[in-house]
Amino acid sequence: MKKLINDPGQVVVEALEGLALAHPDSVRVDLENRVVVRTDAPRPGKVGVISGGGSGHEPLHSGFVGVGMLDAAVCGEVFTSPVPDQLLAATQAVDGGAGVLHLVKNYTGDVMNFEMAAELAAEMLGTRVEAVVIDDDVAVQDSLYTAGRRGVGATVFVEKIAGALAESGADLDAVAAIARKVVAESRSMGVALTSCTVPAAGKPTFELGEGEMELGIGIHGEPGRERLPLGTAAEVAGRLVEPILADLDFTGRDAVVMVNGMGGTPLIELYIVYREVARLLEGAGVRIARSLVGNYVTSLEMAGCSVSVLRADDELLALWDAPVDTLSLRWGA
Amino acid sequence: MKKLINDPGQVVVEALEGLALAHPDSVRVDLENRVVVRTDAPRPGKVGVISGGGSGHEPLHSGFVGVGMLDAAVCGEVFTSPVPDQLLAATQAVDGGAGVLHLVKNYTGDVMNFEMAAELAAEMLGTRVEAVVIDDDVAVQDSLYTAGRRGVGATVFVEKIAGALAESGADLDAVAAIARKVVAESRSMGVALTSCTVPAAGKPTFELGEGEMELGIGIHGEPGRERLPLGTAAEVAGRLVEPILADLDFTGRDAVVMVNGMGGTPLIELYIVYREVARLLEGAGVRIARSLVGNYVTSLEMAGCSVSVLRADDELLALWDAPVDTLSLRWGA
Repeated sequence: MKKLINDPGQVVVEALEGLALAHPDSVRVDLENRVVVRTDAPRPGKVGVISGGGSGHEPLHSGFVGVGMLDAAVCGEVFTSPVPDQLLAATQAVDGGAGVLHLVKNYTGDVMNFEMAAELAAEMLGTRVEAVVIDDDVAVQDSLYTAGRRGVGATVFVEKIAGALAESGADLDAVAAIARKVVAESRSMGVALTSCTVPAAGKPTFELGEGEMELGIGIHGEPGRERLPLGTAAEVAGRLVEPILADLDFTGRDAVVMVNGMGGTPLIELYIVYREVARLLEGAGVRIARSLVGNYVTSLEMAGCSVSVLRADDELLALWDAPVDTLSLRWGA
Repeated sequence: MKKLINDPGQVVVEALEGLALAHPDSVRVDLENRVVVRTDAPRPGKVGVISGGGSGHEPLHSGFVGVGMLDAAVCGEVFTSPVPDQLLAATQAVDGGAGVLHLVKNYTGDVMNFEMAAELAAEMLGTRVEAVVIDDDVAVQDSLYTAGRRGVGATVFVEKIAGALAESGADLDAVAAIARKVVAESRSMGVALTSCTVPAAGKPTFELGEGEMELGIGIHGEPGRERLPLGTAAEVAGRLVEPILADLDFTGRDAVVMVNGMGGTPLIELYIVYREVARLLEGAGVRIARSLVGNYVTSLEMAGCSVSVLRADDELLALWDAPVDTLSLRWGA
């Protein structure tokens, strides 16, 4: 294992110490609970929006804390759900009296611990919590850590759009409703060219032969649909886009498209994949209205990428375009 | 070689086609000359600022085209200098009558081809060009492709600060002078944990043993100072910061600090390195005024990082803080 770390057991807390040192004007970090919070939270009357999960997917979620997106991010150990106490601390930190939205990627541990935290918040703090579970991955139905579909790239769409609506002063029901709409309208599919290595494990999560790819990979290295010979970028893009289009009808609709790097794939390759994805979508009658290309939901140093597509109406596009200012996603102002 | 590409010979042009498809509102792409240009260039009366070099370092340079930074980026083949005709086309594309600044990383081919393009621009277009050569890498004096020190991470500082001054309407002499000042005040040092693979070569540029790191690595995989056993993040940070501080006196001064990923290193590790770098600099009496942590100057999928430090006065900090809106670096507005 070759990693720039000090101690495999201290990776998350030391990275958060680095984050706190690097960006004191943008975020504050509760090191005990491993929560990254907007400097101005809680804001009276604003719905708090939090997300979280295992670490190792950065910039998700901590890089998306800021104006127009998340009020707080909760960081579990690498690929491990945060515990309810952490999620409760984050809920309290962003509670401005208008309720708190929990954005939860669909993994059994995350769902359970967010549920427990919501109950604790209601009992102990009197905070109203709504939870929205994200399950956009068309690769597999159930998985290693999941009942139902996994939550992957659409998390970026949900955090951006729900964050924008919350920023505008909408109430909790409206913010939860738009988050559910984004989930319903989003589909994703990923591929791995290499494994990643969890620091505490010290060895690759899985083995993949020199000429092979894992199609439908999970963001923790969970098995996908099948193991195939690595093809060209055009072939790989086809195998990612086809099941997305088969699962939801995007024909004649506007779409937000993300080509997301898993961590170890150069940007130059992601743009080649984007070229192929754009051609395939346009060939299928999809109108690409907005796009993102880069590392947004990673799996440590895994090589590979995922494609996420959101079927967007004018309401969603307007919220997509709203100003956002976080460590890792900014535009407008 | 496991890469998301179609044809090793078409990597750069296909990536640029992807870039053009993904960001039509932000940039236009001259595919014949492989130049990425601001949509509003040339702007009458504004000094044009261009940079360029071999591809494979993305987001450098194409990701930094936009308001407050570069007017154009010129893309050579992977790790190969662009030819004079490409650089001439970019110079012409951004020439608004106030002259053009060439920002050149110090590699023999780049320096020679930029010089030739400047002569052609003067003869053929009557354009006045000033060139600033960036040579911030303290690792080695001469290198595989370089006489003198190599140009590495400080390129981001130079492009940001010179771009900000050009945006404000300053003249060519002033913009060139501030670029030279940033070069004079910047130092960098890098380390590799793995090699990268140039697509056309099909095999790793160099071999590195399981427990080894290459200290002082070049951004094309050129040899560094020495090969050492991989240490902890704290030890690695010490070996990067020490030669920077030995080369320029930062004591009691404000500094802009960048911890830059080489492409294959997770963000969580870069923040651990930042934690160590910040402690070392503060322990040496350096005041960290601004910081960047992420992938800015990469070497394809190489694992590793570099540290760059800029000794900044109020003038440089004000230009650092000026609004910037590019594909890969944005803030303010």
